[in-house]
Amino acid sequence: MTVDGHILALSGGVGGAKLALGLGTILSPQRLTIVANTGDDFEYLGLHISPDVDSLLYALAGVNNHDTGWGRDAESWTFMTELERLGIDSWFRLGDRDLAVHVYRTHCLRSGRTLSEATRDLTRKFGVASRIVPMTDDRISTLVETADGRLPFQDYFVRFRCQPAIKGILFDNSSASRPSDAFSQALEDPRLSGVVICPSNPYLSIDPILSIPGVPDAIRSRGVPVVAVTPIVRGRSIKGPTAKIMAELGVTVSPLSVAEHYGSLINGFVLDTLDEPIAAAIAELGLAVTVTDTIMQTSGDRQALAFGAVELLGRLSEDGYGTPAPRKRHERT
Amino acid sequence: MTVDGHILALSGGVGGAKLALGLGTILSPQRLTIVANTGDDFEYLGLHISPDVDSLLYALAGVNNHDTGWGRDAESWTFMTELERLGIDSWFRLGDRDLAVHVYRTHCLRSGRTLSEATRDLTRKFGVASRIVPMTDDRISTLVETADGRLPFQDYFVRFRCQPAIKGILFDNSSASRPSDAFSQALEDPRLSGVVICPSNPYLSIDPILSIPGVPDAIRSRGVPVVAVTPIVRGRSIKGPTAKIMAELGVTVSPLSVAEHYGSLINGFVLDTLDEPIAAAIAELGLAVTVTDTIMQTSGDRQALAFGAVELLGRLSEDGYGTPAPRKRHERT
Repeated sequence: MTVDGHILALSGGVGGAKLALGLGTILSPQRLTIVANTGDDFEYLGLHISPDVDSLLYALAGVNNHDTGWGRDAESWTFMTELERLGIDSWFRLGDRDLAVHVYRTHCLRSGRTLSEATRDLTRKFGVASRIVPMTDDRISTLVETADGRLPFQDYFVRFRCQPAIKGILFDNSSASRPSDAFSQALEDPRLSGVVICPSNPYLSIDPILSIPGVPDAIRSRGVPVVAVTPIVRGRSIKGPTAKIMAELGVTVSPLSVAEHYGSLINGFVLDTLDEPIAAAIAELGLAVTVTDTIMQTSGDRQALAFGAVELLGRLSEDGYGTPAPRKRHERT
Repeated sequence: MTVDGHILALSGGVGGAKLALGLGTILSPQRLTIVANTGDDFEYLGLHISPDVDSLLYALAGVNNHDTGWGRDAESWTFMTELERLGIDSWFRLGDRDLAVHVYRTHCLRSGRTLSEATRDLTRKFGVASRIVPMTDDRISTLVETADGRLPFQDYFVRFRCQPAIKGILFDNSSASRPSDAFSQALEDPRLSGVVICPSNPYLSIDPILSIPGVPDAIRSRGVPVVAVTPIVRGRSIKGPTAKIMAELGVTVSPLSVAEHYGSLINGFVLDTLDEPIAAAIAELGLAVTVTDTIMQTSGDRQALAFGAVELLGRLSEDGYGTPAPRKRHERT
């Protein structure tokens, strides 16, 4: 990989945003495009909420809330308190500061602008140099099938706190969607030198991106290396309900399952040091494996993991991985 | 006037709301309908703002801000601070608590409900027993002609702080509008026993209500007494730019001009004690005049003025004013 090669990162919310932030600190802004899952987007009190775009925006702007793990720093809650006082449905927590983004974005969308345009505008206003790009400007809605019926993602995730057991996951309207222009451009950019799948929930955060028709083929056809960073460490999710969902879907809660899930799309895998014993099993899938610390608590952790992922991309490029012909050797049957 | 007679109050924002609150405390809720000017309504960042409805709502709920004279009590400004930080247009001040109403109302309207329905819902949520009714569910926009061109009302009022000299006032879309159902019902209610025009700006707050086709005729045809409470005391407005606008429109800044402006629509006028010298001149117009303190600083002031207005309605009823036949005697030619 050349030092001016471009990196495309696929990310969900908070967990992925940590690595995206790490990538943002080690790569010059024009080299990094972060594609955000928008399957979790929903309307709440008429406001368009893009949870993963916002997690990325706040993390990269350095204004995310470290205490809660979501939302804005220095937040206040007067608006929600008033909604509650009035007996207005207030299951989704919108801080007063956070609300500025939701009101502004909704205003942009109602004025006929796209989510991509609104996001570009917001990243600029927040002083974020790297590109944060919604996966699509079409509406894709992640729905989860549970014992209690089909639920919109935010109902499952926030209102019911991931309690219902998941039997299946759907990406409504996905088949009619197209990648956003900026996502397409990043996929087609001749300078693209690698793809990083962030340590987000593979089923709920990355699969919606890959469900957009043509996206997996576009990634494969570029012949650049693709590495996934594990969201699972020692059988537990670093963040969120990934492990719980894997168990409910009947999948062994292991990085190996994640690697198998991504299958022939990836050429490399970043595994946590604590899971080193299964490195060989992952290599058996035909993947180059980097073993390193993947739990990101400090900015140093985030940078180190970002370096690890980019270094693996570079190693794969040098080895000829990621060019269409040799890659075939590693495809699973 | 019978003790169970119904009163219809026509009101603008803060100034009118004080008297409306007074009326609300002396009349049982089912006897009072307050019609709010909606000519000042506008969209700001995609939110539907109804300034006069909100002033009435907050005043009658006892949650208005006494320090600023507008908006909510116990307000915080995190949302606006964030908009400003992001460089987003923030000329209209929206407090975090206030925002709950704007977001909820906008959500109702986007969901296909009317402004009347949203307002009824909000009054209930705020625990306000009296009816606050928007003058129309159609869009009427007050525009002011100034030396700097035609301005939407809020631009004139807030952004330019009433600085541009007014040359004329227009109520855009007024000719195509209808009174809201609740306003029509109140006008047609056989129990209607009088109309009070609150001490609001006659040109900017009351005229929009009277600009709705059929409204002045409907009031006249009921044959009930109509009294106006002066918004001018000793040549100055009690609240807002009424005096400035009268001067710019070439009208003498006097309660007499206000009485003349309402003309044959009214039968009675409530004048401030400080203007007693012109009581005779107003009576000359064929109006019954009550002279009392009209500056409302305490709840006692508001109640006393409300009593004064209702008492004048009662006196007019007993005198046969307000029944169609005798009223004709007082119409100006």
